[in-house]
Amino acid sequence: MALETKSLWKSHGGTQGVYTHLSDACACPMTFAVFVPPHEPGSKLPVLWYLSGLTCTHANVMEKGEYRKAAAELGIIIVCPDTSPRGEGVPDVADDWKLGCGAGFYVDATVEPWSRNYRMATYVTAELPALVAAAFPMADMARQGIFGHSMGGHGALVLALRNPDRYRSCSAFAPIVHPMAAEWSRGAFTAYLGPDEAAWRAHDGVALIEDGFRFPELLVDQGTADSFLDTGLRPWLLEEACSRAGMALKLRMQQGYDHSYFFISSFMSDHLSWHATRLKG
Amino acid sequence: MALETKSLWKSHGGTQGVYTHLSDACACPMTFAVFVPPHEPGSKLPVLWYLSGLTCTHANVMEKGEYRKAAAELGIIIVCPDTSPRGEGVPDVADDWKLGCGAGFYVDATVEPWSRNYRMATYVTAELPALVAAAFPMADMARQGIFGHSMGGHGALVLALRNPDRYRSCSAFAPIVHPMAAEWSRGAFTAYLGPDEAAWRAHDGVALIEDGFRFPELLVDQGTADSFLDTGLRPWLLEEACSRAGMALKLRMQQGYDHSYFFISSFMSDHLSWHATRLKG
Repeated sequence: MALETKSLWKSHGGTQGVYTHLSDACACPMTFAVFVPPHEPGSKLPVLWYLSGLTCTHANVMEKGEYRKAAAELGIIIVCPDTSPRGEGVPDVADDWKLGCGAGFYVDATVEPWSRNYRMATYVTAELPALVAAAFPMADMARQGIFGHSMGGHGALVLALRNPDRYRSCSAFAPIVHPMAAEWSRGAFTAYLGPDEAAWRAHDGVALIEDGFRFPELLVDQGTADSFLDTGLRPWLLEEACSRAGMALKLRMQQGYDHSYFFISSFMSDHLSWHATRLKG
Repeated sequence: MALETKSLWKSHGGTQGVYTHLSDACACPMTFAVFVPPHEPGSKLPVLWYLSGLTCTHANVMEKGEYRKAAAELGIIIVCPDTSPRGEGVPDVADDWKLGCGAGFYVDATVEPWSRNYRMATYVTAELPALVAAAFPMADMARQGIFGHSMGGHGALVLALRNPDRYRSCSAFAPIVHPMAAEWSRGAFTAYLGPDEAAWRAHDGVALIEDGFRFPELLVDQGTADSFLDTGLRPWLLEEACSRAGMALKLRMQQGYDHSYFFISSFMSDHLSWHATRLKG
């Protein structure tokens, strides 16, 4: 669990760092980013997890997400994990951006050869929080929130629904709300979890809600000009599931926005405020 | 002067576009980025030019500069040109990031083979403003400001000093204030302008002030942990020149910040506010 600091920049009065460590869960070196806002010595700060989308690493949102200004003002630590295991010996599929490296889908794979490394659910909910708690003494692990984009929005919804005692707040940008029924995720679910779709339901936001899992309230922003809206994202399925379950969902259809970081960054400070209200209360 | 739209994203309520055109000044296709904030139809908005540093294109600050939120709130158009001509037939030096492509230094080269394409001063102050005025009817060209980073901070200072009637406001992040005396710029100045250093003074902020050029007031932010501080940047030379000339300079040494976009983005909204005050008054 030794942590190596790869980069450390002062930014917005705090520090943006990039760290690597040898992961037990993923059986390979893993890289992640942490922003620590300016704070009084000895104070404890809430921790907000940002899960990124397909093809991304920790770096995309760190460079383009524009979260530091609001996080500095609100006093929130932001942790950005990678989206999959990577490197020598880690299974991958060349030319498929929806499977393997960059496409971990935040599940624990149960099928060979993926099951050795692709254990992102355990990594994000257990190994990395323990590491962050040990390495960042100002991190208040009793106050964690989670959000993400696209595949990472899926990850945030699923991990929050499965761990409502762990996370106090959850939101998403353009999440894959029902991955077991979406073309771009069925391949990875089949590879990682096997052909029995009953086993997929534990890793699917809409299915979890249908199966009785609950989270107090969700914020979702979705661009109307998102080219994946009708095929892969379909937020109305989440809306219907929440409605049937009596679960609070604030779904905002954002006119003219697409799937890019230009969309994410536009509503980043709104999301940080949403989390701050629930993490600092 | 026909303009081709390469990309157009909605962001922060406005539109972030990337455009290409065949440049007369640079005798090659040129790419630039424009952010138009949300605005009332028929209204006119000030135009702020951002000049980027060595190795950058229009894209770096567009992706990492975090200017859109403040520009949207303040109602300012942001134009981000490339840092040099590029492409087939444009002279370049492989493996030298301080000369050729990505290193135009915002001068009009007078020496072959550079003089055919490397005319960034004319491009940024004449050709591109005319193009922007024609293509963006909401752009109020009577209210222009200019800022930039490193080599682009040099460009902003020099172009403002040479065109005080054109620009109402000027600021810089970690500018090369005295490029004719800095190791990383002397090579390009020699190549573009010839060995006679007397001809360099018209393209050097400190020398221009020494030679009687004036601008009403400048804002400069400089990180104290910038690895180029002592060798290439040396803001105290600008401070001394301004002091001798009786020119107003707000120089802020920012403790612990380096030369990166993590530094730039930290003070971006301060700079936009500085410009807004002077452009909207």
